[in-house]
Amino acid sequence: MDAYGHINNVQVLRILEEARIHAFGSPGGTGGFGERPPVQLFSAVNTGVQTLVVEHRVKYVAPLDYRNIPLNIEVWISEIKPASFTMAYLVRDPMTDTVCVKAETVLAFIDVESGRPLRITQEQRHAVEPFLGEPVFS
Amino acid sequence: MDAYGHINNVQVLRILEEARIHAFGSPGGTGGFGERPPVQLFSAVNTGVQTLVVEHRVKYVAPLDYRNIPLNIEVWISEIKPASFTMAYLVRDPMTDTVCVKAETVLAFIDVESGRPLRITQEQRHAVEPFLGEPVFS
Amino acid sequence: MDAYGHINNVQVLRILEEARIHAFGSPGGTGGFGERPPVQLFSAVNTGVQTLVVEHRVKYVAPLDYRNIPLNIEVWISEIKPASFTMAYLVRDPMTDTVCVKAETVLAFIDVESGRPLRITQEQRHAVEPFLGEPVFS
Amino acid sequence: MDAYGHINNVQVLRILEEARIHAFGSPGGTGGFGERPPVQLFSAVNTGVQTLVVEHRVKYVAPLDYRNIPLNIEVWISEIKPASFTMAYLVRDPMTDTVCVKAETVLAFIDVESGRPLRITQEQRHAVEPFLGEPVFS
Repeated sequence: MDAYGHINNVQVLRILEEARIHAFGSPGGTGGFGERPPVQLFSAVNTGVQTLVVEHRVKYVAPLDYRNIPLNIEVWISEIKPASFTMAYLVRDPMTDTVCVKAETVLAFIDVESGRPLRITQEQRHAVEPFLGEPVFS
Repeated sequence: MDAYGHINNVQVLRILEEARIHAFGSPGGTGGFGERPPVQLFSAVNTGVQTLVVEHRVKYVAPLDYRNIPLNIEVWISEIKPASFTMAYLVRDPMTDTVCVKAETVLAFIDVESGRPLRITQEQRHAVEPFLGEPVFS
Repeated sequence: MDAYGHINNVQVLRILEEARIHAFGSPGGTGGFGERPPVQLFSAVNTGVQTLVVEHRVKYVAPLDYRNIPLNIEVWISEIKPASFTMAYLVRDPMTDTVCVKAETVLAFIDVESGRPLRITQEQRHAVEPFLGEPVFS
Repeated sequence: MDAYGHINNVQVLRILEEARIHAFGSPGGTGGFGERPPVQLFSAVNTGVQTLVVEHRVKYVAPLDYRNIPLNIEVWISEIKPASFTMAYLVRDPMTDTVCVKAETVLAFIDVESGRPLRITQEQRHAVEPFLGEPVFS
């Protein structure tokens, strides 16, 4: 909560990270096991590969009140490029159902040794294709 | 997640705050409404009263792995003094059930205008008494 | 520091907030006094006015190593609109001088009572005009 | 800043971490190089050793206002045990010089392979002895 009683704009990005991990798994080689995520994307990367955030774009459409119940967050893939993909989010107030935040995150898989981005594999493409949707920002 | 893949020791305090608010309500006059908390303690304070953290004591007993499932946190009241009370927590790994963190937070209600602590009222005492238990640290 | 030893992408936004406040002052009516900021923008707003983040766009161009010395952050205004303005940032690694993060934040001043954005005043325009520069993203 | 305009009690622990790293170096094997810290303690540990927080105790003695100038933090060692040591802190408001936070952190060095704490070495003892002082909490 910030000085105005809203969820702080920086904490919103932490919440988007949690939504992303909940849907697509914990980055492989980090953290412990929990439940099998709906889509095994981040969790399926090999040792020696890092999942990096390349870009965030976050639009705060309406103030997001701090409440003692979970937010309602929709997460999907809005673009697949040869060496990156874009995750899209809509965050809704759980009481009013108002869309409060629209966001996109571009992610890439990096080979740790060379420091270079890896091409999205066929397996990764197949894993996320059922969740491919429209971009959030036109 | 910190550089070792554990939940960062500072974030643990944020998680304890969420557990506290989940059990005893959002501080009155801040945040929006959600569900009625099990115990209406923080949420029931009057306008002009702030709920302040006076002291934290946190013992990291075992490394807490980052997982994609919620932690299991036990929260209770371990002491009621004339003008403050102590909340106690046990944080368990949700997969192994190991106690990873033991903690206590001393809280006080402050009158904003005078800046002075308020005595715990009979209503507050009655509200929390069913949740009174042993101290975490002996 | 995240699980890869870099400064976590979410913490980068907290750092941008500090850079913004260092240059343009603490939002009026929140926080205490420190030193007179180079530009009195946020600190000069009247009671009843909130400074809200409307949008963030953050591009992580190169990994930002955690170091024990301050980052080098350039902050300027990249656009003034009738009821909002855009702040631009370049974050450089303090050892290598590499640009690691490029970012823009759109901010607006909101009248608390009506919940509506306020027009940028002549005073605000004059205060920030000397710091008007190019957009970060073309 | 929290909903009351103070520095949030959780962020205070992040600030103590920064003070600790500023004085005693970044944990070895994590982060990048910056300046040589006054005392090379954390920065001097070997590969395969992790520096873990074992316990925090933080007393919020007076509200800590958010300001746009750095806090004044005193850091020292208050106890050296065979396999752990305690760091003590006093956080002062930089305008009023009031002590706002008193804190202690117990830290240990862990051998990653065995998961067991390592004995404090003669070198470590010599490095920190000049900074040995009184406990914060009696």
